Amino acid sequence: MSLQVIPPALERLIQDLCKLPGIGQKTASRLGMTILRRPANEARELADALTQLHSSIQLCSCCFTFSESDPCSICGNLKRDASLVCVVEQPGDLLAIEKAGNFNGHYHILHGVLSPMDGIGPAELKIKELEARINSGTIKEIFIATSSTVPGEATASFLIDRLHKRPVLLTRLACGIPMGMDIKYADRHTLARAIESRSETR
Amino acid sequence: MSLQVIPPALERLIQDLCKLPGIGQKTASRLGMTILRRPANEARELADALTQLHSSIQLCSCCFTFSESDPCSICGNLKRDASLVCVVEQPGDLLAIEKAGNFNGHYHILHGVLSPMDGIGPAELKIKELEARINSGTIKEIFIATSSTVPGEATASFLIDRLHKRPVLLTRLACGIPMGMDIKYADRHTLARAIESRSETR
Repeated sequence: MSLQVIPPALERLIQDLCKLPGIGQKTASRLGMTILRRPANEARELADALTQLHSSIQLCSCCFTFSESDPCSICGNLKRDASLVCVVEQPGDLLAIEKAGNFNGHYHILHGVLSPMDGIGPAELKIKELEARINSGTIKEIFIATSSTVPGEATASFLIDRLHKRPVLLTRLACGIPMGMDIKYADRHTLARAIESRSETR
Repeated sequence: MSLQVIPPALERLIQDLCKLPGIGQKTASRLGMTILRRPANEARELADALTQLHSSIQLCSCCFTFSESDPCSICGNLKRDASLVCVVEQPGDLLAIEKAGNFNGHYHILHGVLSPMDGIGPAELKIKELEARINSGTIKEIFIATSSTVPGEATASFLIDRLHKRPVLLTRLACGIPMGMDIKYADRHTLARAIESRSETR
């Protein structure tokens, strides 16, 4: 009923915006209306940025993160430790770890997690490429930093299984109570993991 | 620090997305990453929709809503009552009233509310155009449906002041308790207004 009064060009934009994660019909309408109210050059600028995106960004041939240069700024940085490689699910995870500010190694992006239901097996992830990097002989430590979700844990287990005979140290991101959190509000799985992984005071 | 590892083309898209209402740095990063992970033609489709938006949509010369035709589908609909005109702040308000489904008149979009702090006075809104429509003589009722916010109320008062000598009936959207709301959770201003506007049972 209301569709009749929404101009088709606006409706098209709204439907396209709806395909993005976390954007429903209402948010998409609000965004579309705002873009329409603002000057046309702002919409053009956003359209340009979208058009440029895929043409100027590629995957780094070493770590498979998104980058405009190959190798990326991290793989090409001689000040970083090439013997330590952090394995993450997605480029967004790399950013999160970079923001933490205390990791100075290289990365390896899997581009997903094992998810048999969605048809994503080891061949769909950059696992062979990780093994090829290990074969090259410069890597001493593989630091697995997949998320502590069910598929993230499954992927980590798979990697540990596959790599434990290689001459590299396998490490994992610690799980526990978030900084500043009151123990009584922690869920029991997190608390159990934090107790299990308790460390000696220094 | 993290900027260094975000490719400039992605950073540009993220900054453009940040300009939209309700989208902060984190949401924009997530959206940008998602768009980058998905096929390039999806980004192109969204870019196309954005580019087309302003070129195919104009303001209806009668009610000033966004439309691809002039007059718009409402002003051009002979089945609708042209003697009843609903005055709203923005085209989005028109959609909300259309969705309610029980209004069969025409509209008039002010394109804003009075806001002296932002330099928006009566001349910046489509008030002269509303007066011209009244002068044309077909309008019997002006139904003011601005929001019940401070600037919305101020705009309504201004319109009532300006139009009360005209030979048209001036009406306003009713304020009261939302449907299905428990009285004890209503704020006192809404409750006071609802008591004031109480109506006789039929």
